[in-house]
Amino acid sequence: MAKGKVLLVLYEGKDSAKEEPRLLGCIENELGIRKLVEDAGYELVTTTNKDPEPTSQVDKELADTEIIITTPFYPAYVTASRIAKAPKLKMCITAGVGSDHVDLDAANKRNISVLEVTGSNVQSVAEHVMMTILVFIRNFIPSHQMAVGGGWDIAACAKHEYDLEGKVVATVGAGRIGYRVLERLVAFNPKKLLYYDYQPLPQEAVDKLNQASKLFNGTDNIVERVENLEDMVAEADIVTINCPLHAQSKGLFNKQLISKMKPTAYLVNTARGAICVAEDVAEAVKNGTIAGYGGDVWNVQPAPDNHPWRSMDNSWHGGNAMTPHISGTSLDAQKRYADGVKQILTAYFTGKHDYRPQDVIVINGDYATKSYGQRK
Amino acid sequence: MAKGKVLLVLYEGKDSAKEEPRLLGCIENELGIRKLVEDAGYELVTTTNKDPEPTSQVDKELADTEIIITTPFYPAYVTASRIAKAPKLKMCITAGVGSDHVDLDAANKRNISVLEVTGSNVQSVAEHVMMTILVFIRNFIPSHQMAVGGGWDIAACAKHEYDLEGKVVATVGAGRIGYRVLERLVAFNPKKLLYYDYQPLPQEAVDKLNQASKLFNGTDNIVERVENLEDMVAEADIVTINCPLHAQSKGLFNKQLISKMKPTAYLVNTARGAICVAEDVAEAVKNGTIAGYGGDVWNVQPAPDNHPWRSMDNSWHGGNAMTPHISGTSLDAQKRYADGVKQILTAYFTGKHDYRPQDVIVINGDYATKSYGQRK
Repeated sequence: MAKGKVLLVLYEGKDSAKEEPRLLGCIENELGIRKLVEDAGYELVTTTNKDPEPTSQVDKELADTEIIITTPFYPAYVTASRIAKAPKLKMCITAGVGSDHVDLDAANKRNISVLEVTGSNVQSVAEHVMMTILVFIRNFIPSHQMAVGGGWDIAACAKHEYDLEGKVVATVGAGRIGYRVLERLVAFNPKKLLYYDYQPLPQEAVDKLNQASKLFNGTDNIVERVENLEDMVAEADIVTINCPLHAQSKGLFNKQLISKMKPTAYLVNTARGAICVAEDVAEAVKNGTIAGYGGDVWNVQPAPDNHPWRSMDNSWHGGNAMTPHISGTSLDAQKRYADGVKQILTAYFTGKHDYRPQDVIVINGDYATKSYGQRK
Repeated sequence: MAKGKVLLVLYEGKDSAKEEPRLLGCIENELGIRKLVEDAGYELVTTTNKDPEPTSQVDKELADTEIIITTPFYPAYVTASRIAKAPKLKMCITAGVGSDHVDLDAANKRNISVLEVTGSNVQSVAEHVMMTILVFIRNFIPSHQMAVGGGWDIAACAKHEYDLEGKVVATVGAGRIGYRVLERLVAFNPKKLLYYDYQPLPQEAVDKLNQASKLFNGTDNIVERVENLEDMVAEADIVTINCPLHAQSKGLFNKQLISKMKPTAYLVNTARGAICVAEDVAEAVKNGTIAGYGGDVWNVQPAPDNHPWRSMDNSWHGGNAMTPHISGTSLDAQKRYADGVKQILTAYFTGKHDYRPQDVIVINGDYATKSYGQRK
């Protein structure tokens, strides 16, 4: 008899899973953890059937599950009611970064640990942010559609095309991802880099950005912390969201805050969809309150076919740069977060519990990080 | 009677020209030079009718034209036969960068000066390169199409999605644009940056790249000059072309050279379309010799509707990232090259001929630059 059950919830890979063995993050390829789990005497149960609660396969497995592993790309939501039905649950592991799909307060009450693979895809997400910013500011989408669809109207493309150089870029959140975005922006010679965060960037990080700016652009003091979020979004040509989802950030970008942005500004969100009010964003893009919205995170995943972010666009069809939630699940990232999950499982199975401190979100009934809104 | 005729050939702006006065580069807005030209006692004639030779409006105007101004985005080709029909022609000005639309040898024989606005849009083009690289490596196009078209198949997107981090990026040409691409790549923590050029980068430029790499990535010696082009393209995950079009670079990327590239590699060309053999590129993308081709330059501009680069694609529809020729004509760039043209015209009209040295391509019957293949 197995010592316990590990429940693994991942997206389906179908043909892609067979064709590409590096697609570790899909249900068929199981993060490559089966041997590790079974060698430890545990049973590995895998499923893609996560919704709806309480009739999904996930719900059926909860009674004797000790560890739940899922990803932000296709999350099994670990709600308080599901935790109540999982008396043996000891640990939730996020294969990736961002554990907002777990009710962390409910986990703490039951002394369930929540861990993620911090840093496993921060560079991947930062790249997606940079791509989306450039796609918007250079008006790529309608221009590409013209190239493949026929025609040649340079003026129609150029009319909405700008350089990133000389623009003000603002990030909400300057943690591991937000800071990496700032690093990648410097060489583009922006006018100013702004950030809003509950704590200032370490001086060393600020120094790096300034040194690089001096090196490439001959200008210093490139980065500035802004105390007031409304002031910051009002000044920015591009706003990028790089903070976790928690009680304080949920619905932060609503109609009221978005109305402070410039009508020529773009909003890029690769953090979590629920930080924005979906209908307010779609309406703002459609009515010209902002120029466009892009990113890869949705308030419900998989997003329904009629989600307003699928169909929203601006008047020149360059205002929607959405993708499914893929930024953090590149093939390179999949290897890193699969390795990280193995490391966490090994620490658990051996009883050493020698986790990397940065991977621990909640443990022993308390938060181990201030990232999820536990700040003064 | 006017002292002479200035012939201005630009793309048509139509409604866009009226709606956006910053669209200086279209025929309606005339680069904002009319007053300058007329105040100098010259006549300004404008047309979009540039093809075909010898029946276009451009051909009809040649007999008494003293100065031709055109752009790379919609170039009036100044061929030897057209020069022969323009006995009064003294100067060709490129509103932008790249004067390969002028037969430079024929210009030299007639002592016609050719000038361009060097540096006016190098940052714009470098940004377009970075955007195209990211769009490819992160598999943006099919993922975006899925987001707006419906469905949610993360595995299908992720199967062809990589990080730029850890990849080898190679540039053919490390001049003003190529070097700026290298600057913008460093913070992405690439494995290696390679370049192929007839001259080495200045040590100061190499030092900058290495210092930034040390700062951000903790690694030194990030950039390497490669003597053999075939060796370089064989090693690269991404090849970007940033050299002028001249006799030695025309058709450089043909079937033979492309066959040396990795099947997973992408080719990005924002330099000139004719550096690549159009059919060979399209065939290579379709048959999987390379993963994709993107950029904004075409061997004929406007590109015909049946140009093979419009319809080419790879098996997962992520292999074509073409746009019309827009990278260097963002609204920011238009202001810079319009200003540069005014500066050149002023230097001419005043008789001072105090041009910025870097703007002069040929003058007094000889090349003033080594960029167009005049190298030992």
